[in-house]
Amino acid sequence: MNETSRGWLERDAAVVWHGFTQMASFLGGEASRAPLMIERAEGRELIDVDGNRYLDAISSLWVTTLGHRVPELDRALIDQVGRIAHSTLLGNGNTVVVHLAEALSRVVPVESPHFLFASDGASAVEQALKVAFQYWRNKGAGAGEHRLFLALGGAYHGDTTGAISLGDSGFESAVFDPLKFEVLRSPGYGDPDWLAAAAKVIESRSGELAAVVVEPLVQAAGGMVVGDPHQVGELGQLCHDAGVLLIADEVATGFGRTGAMFASEICGLRPDLLCIGKGLTGGYLPMSATAASAKVYEAFFGDDLGPETLYHGHSYGGNALAAAVALKHLELMESRHVLDNVRSGADHLAGSLAGSLADHLAVKAIRQQGLMVGVELSPPVEGLRWGRRACAGATRRGVLLRPLGDVVVIMPPLTITTGEIDRIVAVLVESLDELL
Amino acid sequence: MNETSRGWLERDAAVVWHGFTQMASFLGGEASRAPLMIERAEGRELIDVDGNRYLDAISSLWVTTLGHRVPELDRALIDQVGRIAHSTLLGNGNTVVVHLAEALSRVVPVESPHFLFASDGASAVEQALKVAFQYWRNKGAGAGEHRLFLALGGAYHGDTTGAISLGDSGFESAVFDPLKFEVLRSPGYGDPDWLAAAAKVIESRSGELAAVVVEPLVQAAGGMVVGDPHQVGELGQLCHDAGVLLIADEVATGFGRTGAMFASEICGLRPDLLCIGKGLTGGYLPMSATAASAKVYEAFFGDDLGPETLYHGHSYGGNALAAAVALKHLELMESRHVLDNVRSGADHLAGSLAGSLADHLAVKAIRQQGLMVGVELSPPVEGLRWGRRACAGATRRGVLLRPLGDVVVIMPPLTITTGEIDRIVAVLVESLDELL
Repeated sequence: MNETSRGWLERDAAVVWHGFTQMASFLGGEASRAPLMIERAEGRELIDVDGNRYLDAISSLWVTTLGHRVPELDRALIDQVGRIAHSTLLGNGNTVVVHLAEALSRVVPVESPHFLFASDGASAVEQALKVAFQYWRNKGAGAGEHRLFLALGGAYHGDTTGAISLGDSGFESAVFDPLKFEVLRSPGYGDPDWLAAAAKVIESRSGELAAVVVEPLVQAAGGMVVGDPHQVGELGQLCHDAGVLLIADEVATGFGRTGAMFASEICGLRPDLLCIGKGLTGGYLPMSATAASAKVYEAFFGDDLGPETLYHGHSYGGNALAAAVALKHLELMESRHVLDNVRSGADHLAGSLAGSLADHLAVKAIRQQGLMVGVELSPPVEGLRWGRRACAGATRRGVLLRPLGDVVVIMPPLTITTGEIDRIVAVLVESLDELL
Repeated sequence: MNETSRGWLERDAAVVWHGFTQMASFLGGEASRAPLMIERAEGRELIDVDGNRYLDAISSLWVTTLGHRVPELDRALIDQVGRIAHSTLLGNGNTVVVHLAEALSRVVPVESPHFLFASDGASAVEQALKVAFQYWRNKGAGAGEHRLFLALGGAYHGDTTGAISLGDSGFESAVFDPLKFEVLRSPGYGDPDWLAAAAKVIESRSGELAAVVVEPLVQAAGGMVVGDPHQVGELGQLCHDAGVLLIADEVATGFGRTGAMFASEICGLRPDLLCIGKGLTGGYLPMSATAASAKVYEAFFGDDLGPETLYHGHSYGGNALAAAVALKHLELMESRHVLDNVRSGADHLAGSLAGSLADHLAVKAIRQQGLMVGVELSPPVEGLRWGRRACAGATRRGVLLRPLGDVVVIMPPLTITTGEIDRIVAVLVESLDELL
């Protein structure tokens, strides 16, 4: 690290608390790399204060879709700021938000959807769980009826209190157990019998369940664990048959990552509530939303100011600047045939991984769905931090990676080229060779 | 409402679910006004699709500070989008975020602060409560020790599960009681003995308390209930003496609304954790943050990847576009002497309210702190929806207002002029006359 980076990082460490980061060793330690100090970007590359370039192979933590500095997205933002940056959606409308909600309504796998906007992905999950819970109250359910959620082992739904309640206790979140509400849990996609186990809970406790919450197809933060799409679809059918609501959390899987616009489509799921975020604005701005089916939405009709109303709203929900970018992003996803590139890129990546990494001594398993990949490493003993070290090696070589424990995540922008894919895999092979 | 508005609102109602809004009567009803469909803005005025102009006397729900379409803020946004819109703060830095955190560190009333960024205000509260809870675990507290929160009657801290747990059951949130964690509660600022009641809880249960959570000086969503600054300061001293953490939620009061940059300053509070949002970006973009004192921050130091780490983070936390706007906004607050305008405007508003409204038959009480005002109405019987109708009358007259029940909220941009203040008050008088 040269002087410029070092100076910036010391300034950063003096005032910024980075999430999911042990700040005592932020500036560098034995098994870790120095953090990057990013100043600008071009296309799929991040550029640090020293002018070093890094291929953004984690999509700036799973959010960037088309790349950075997309001229059409920049233009949409600049045009919107010339009209208005923000006006409240509490009781009033904004034209650009209407345009966006209409465009979203044409692509989400939800019946006659209405969109509740927020900014953090976790807030979209919170909205979904509150809507599901109140849905049953509005329907006249008794105190002991339809008040529980079923979620899967290994699930991750965000970091707010409701979201960590639904999530399994990854990332040390067990420390917060006294703050969480009760959630029923059946095994995640990694268990071959996960569907049968979930079915048993749904059938035996349907009268107690408000909703089943699922990350369709890929449990992402849980280590890129891929489920069988047919089985995930069956879960939806079980919920439907039992009269239990289904919440699909597509904050990570939505907007093309899996090879379809939404993973629910691949599974044949039609959730009652859908959570979206991350890729919604192409990686530009915080915006999330909860889409509710007509059945759910209409259960909140009642007298004005009455108790059936959903008293929930975030100040910046439906922010006009974010909406303008999200609207243009949806148009570009279609006009540029981005899903085609995800599918062909995923095929190329699968071939490259099979050829170069599947038999690598440091690799235990490779899991992939579209352009979401988890390479699980096989350290001989615990505590070696192979995931961390492998990603540090790749980053030194100009490819930014960040692991989930000993799972190296590869999640490039959806416009990634075959040449860039080959580079990511080659750099990862070199970094793994270094570990042995 | 003319055809253009009507058409837009019908499109809106077909796809958007507005928070805190009964959608069955969204398009208009007996006691309500038609919603506005905003397309653009100029200065402190919103402009709808018919070209009608509305003075934004609620700051687009308490977020707009300098006004809409501020050339310098627009410029900062456009310059930043030419560099980068977003890069992840998980484990890495971004130069504009360092600049912002340094600038914030010079103005927040927190000792040697570190900033954890998020987007929704409720997420900043969630971060604060999780940090406070884990602080004690990291310090080795037992299972029954330092795990409870004390919050005030009438409190509002946002709508996520942890935030509604801390909040009192306003806005019908009692329906979600089964999802909330346990919170101790003592009366709010409206009770003359609130401090003594809080003191009793703090003294008798200090070993069980993780933190006391307070909206310094003004309980805003609770109806603009103003506390005595000296007493609020004493609450901080009680927490300090008892060794209990203090969380100040300044999402609503921060960035000048009360006449100081933060209400904590007026009260002489130095919270361990400070939550900010809304005005942070001047009303442009979603961004929130939790500032932690050095004492709290350093309790999370430990082994890399160890259990003392805070495993919490939002994908868009520290968004570069929002940071660039927030940074420029802080500069403008200072260079334009905005706080001076808040104080002189508040004086003018107080005089205008005293002269025209204090003795009005429809008014029960006027509460004000800086440019945060609640005019509590005195309907002769329940169910008349005077708050709603008074605001509908004002909006018809070109001044956008939105009530909290029968409390009419006046919260104009901080750059409001004396002429505009007189107009707001005159229009409200006319609207109240109409009710009688």
